[in-house]
Amino acid sequence: MTDERVGAFGEQALIRAIRARIAAGPHDGVLLGPGDDAALLACASPLAWTLDCVTAGVDWFPDRTPAEAIGHRAAVVNLSDLAAMGATPKWLLLGLELDPTTPVASVLRGVDGLVAAASAAGAGVVGGDVGFRAGPDAWTVTALGAAQGTPLRRDAARPGDRVWLIGPVGLAGLGLETLQREDDALASWQERALSAHFWPRPRVSAGIALAATGLRTAAIDVSDGLLLDAERVAAASGVRLTLDIDPTPWFDDDARREAETRGFDWRVAIAAGGDDYALLVTAAADRDVAQESGVKACWPVGRVLDGAGVELRVAGEAYFGPSGGYLHGESRLVGDGASR
Amino acid sequence: MTDERVGAFGEQALIRAIRARIAAGPHDGVLLGPGDDAALLACASPLAWTLDCVTAGVDWFPDRTPAEAIGHRAAVVNLSDLAAMGATPKWLLLGLELDPTTPVASVLRGVDGLVAAASAAGAGVVGGDVGFRAGPDAWTVTALGAAQGTPLRRDAARPGDRVWLIGPVGLAGLGLETLQREDDALASWQERALSAHFWPRPRVSAGIALAATGLRTAAIDVSDGLLLDAERVAAASGVRLTLDIDPTPWFDDDARREAETRGFDWRVAIAAGGDDYALLVTAAADRDVAQESGVKACWPVGRVLDGAGVELRVAGEAYFGPSGGYLHGESRLVGDGASR
Repeated sequence: MTDERVGAFGEQALIRAIRARIAAGPHDGVLLGPGDDAALLACASPLAWTLDCVTAGVDWFPDRTPAEAIGHRAAVVNLSDLAAMGATPKWLLLGLELDPTTPVASVLRGVDGLVAAASAAGAGVVGGDVGFRAGPDAWTVTALGAAQGTPLRRDAARPGDRVWLIGPVGLAGLGLETLQREDDALASWQERALSAHFWPRPRVSAGIALAATGLRTAAIDVSDGLLLDAERVAAASGVRLTLDIDPTPWFDDDARREAETRGFDWRVAIAAGGDDYALLVTAAADRDVAQESGVKACWPVGRVLDGAGVELRVAGEAYFGPSGGYLHGESRLVGDGASR
Repeated sequence: MTDERVGAFGEQALIRAIRARIAAGPHDGVLLGPGDDAALLACASPLAWTLDCVTAGVDWFPDRTPAEAIGHRAAVVNLSDLAAMGATPKWLLLGLELDPTTPVASVLRGVDGLVAAASAAGAGVVGGDVGFRAGPDAWTVTALGAAQGTPLRRDAARPGDRVWLIGPVGLAGLGLETLQREDDALASWQERALSAHFWPRPRVSAGIALAATGLRTAAIDVSDGLLLDAERVAAASGVRLTLDIDPTPWFDDDARREAETRGFDWRVAIAAGGDDYALLVTAAADRDVAQESGVKACWPVGRVLDGAGVELRVAGEAYFGPSGGYLHGESRLVGDGASR
């Protein structure tokens, strides 16, 4: 089966093979799983609901990305949206639009990556749809989560709040550039950057912990670039953000020097790289978000002011570079989907 | 704007234009609509959930299908899945993967078609995702519905039950063939068939009415062809179906003669055409589904027996033709998505 293509294998056979992989465990609240016209779910109100798509040549390299990482990414872009609302991921559906020449084995490995990422977040894949047409493979996932506590809306930032960053930013972009260069010998920060690119980690438990605090907390997931996503919070809340990112905890002086030697523009990666799926969070100045949420990778990075827009410093220097899209001329390093 | 392409127009501008169209009305139970990381919904348990995708060149003709009909179809394939569960449609999300050369105006007309189809079923579009890449346009929709009453599962058919058909089958396939032929003068049944192809009608109120009866009713929506979808009910329930379809109510003797004169194989269209989004329903033999559901376009068409498989007669003659795919050599008249 290893060399077989999905077009020859057939939709029905592919669906059966996928079903066998997603039905591995009984999932919480699933009254009826794959195989009928729709899934039936026992749910509590309110629910958080998102949909996001990743595409060959845009979100991954068909020739260089491990197949499992495709499904992983398709899950994470959605799980991260739920995390940014403070919701607990529950269920996913998978829509596959595949080129007939795509190998069956790589699709099934991608499904394994999807299921693993969903399981790690406590969620299950409960159905989907498969279609073939000539064109770049697209993995569309929709995810439902339970929105307990106080949802983390983009419009909740208030002047006087402090801004926090949960999780590193910039590594995924540096990993993508590393992948594109095909260098022979990689520095250790490049190994970490590659891992951040292939296996981004949605900040699910951090989002849930923040929602549980009951703080008036604004949050967005940094999927399209720190500056661009910060501008979205500023616009939604009608405020100005001043940010000063010290990347030392995840990208120290030595790494920065090494990156410069190799010609990487790490400041742009931090400011505009995207795809790290960190959370950018605001809360009242007298609250310690790191302590109250119990999240370790959580750093104070700025202030909320009256006004509009975002002022960004990276490692102490004012940043005036691009706000989205670290690598220019690429079809996309970062996009800006409606629900990301 | 009429000639502008989405690639030049930009993702953010397109998202704003789409948002203005989907936010037309306040929708029941929407705590937070488009513009954040996820939508927030006030829901009651249980929910029915489905996802389905339609693609240029597979599900519509880029050069011959009205733009509104694309969005209409993307909504209907999902609304029909909910109808086949007896669920009340509530909310939809839209995922657009577009070629950069697609005109902005046609996308927005498609969104209008989507919103109109959703509204007609009592549902609202609450968000989504947009991405550009070179390739055939794909409209992926996911829909949530409230599953009151007794869900209409595929595995509920029992020997002794009667089989009912809700809505015509075959017209959409004949409409597709009419479209492909580009005949100069159309017979009146061809006009109706074209309309059935472009503007299929999901049997939402029929599904809800059936679920409300509390009957042990099996149902499937006839999206991929009557024979193929009947085989799915037979397989899921572990029974045999015998069907005898009299198409006279929607495709009478005169139309059949006329279609034969023009070289249309109307029997295959009825047996295997798909995309009509009729419902195939089973219920105990002592129950009158037409009367109890109050659905007018509802006809008794067969019996459930011990055994396996499907025996089909069309207008009194045994049918031994293909089970899915009315037009051969086409990329797809009918597919067989996992959740259709």
